[in-house]
Amino acid sequence: MKATVHVTLKSGVLDPEGKAVQHALETLGFSGVNGVRQGKYIEIDLSDADPVGTHDRVDAMCRQLLANTVIENYTIDISE
Amino acid sequence: MKATVHVTLKSGVLDPEGKAVQHALETLGFSGVNGVRQGKYIEIDLSDADPVGTHDRVDAMCRQLLANTVIENYTIDISE
Repeated sequence: MKATVHVTLKSGVLDPEGKAVQHALETLGFSGVNGVRQGKYIEIDLSDADPVGTHDRVDAMCRQLLANTVIENYTIDISE
Repeated sequence: MKATVHVTLKSGVLDPEGKAVQHALETLGFSGVNGVRQGKYIEIDLSDADPVGTHDRVDAMCRQLLANTVIENYTIDISE
């Protein structure tokens, strides 16, 4: 079973990495870039068989390690 | 128009960040974690109106800046 986690900064939280990418794109000549936000994408390969229990376990992983819930949001997708 | 880019390491390329997360999860007591791969997730807000041209432009951004195509793969999704 595979869990896919997206960790993104909450709106309103400054994203210096995204700003750097935006400026670099402008420097390279790409116009019309209004904003860039950068986040993390984490794939977890699990030996669980139960999708519901897996979602709860991955949620615990996010809260304890993968995301800083003060400034970050996360979404979880579970697939076979 | 919004472009969503996922940048992931090619299979076979060592992912020390993912390994560190895997070990940390095991230390926290999460068992059954067979592997973790970490990648980047980038949201680009564009003022383009044409989805086809936008895809090509974002593809150029990936090749020139966002991804290191020697060791990384990328996928692009364009949405309104």
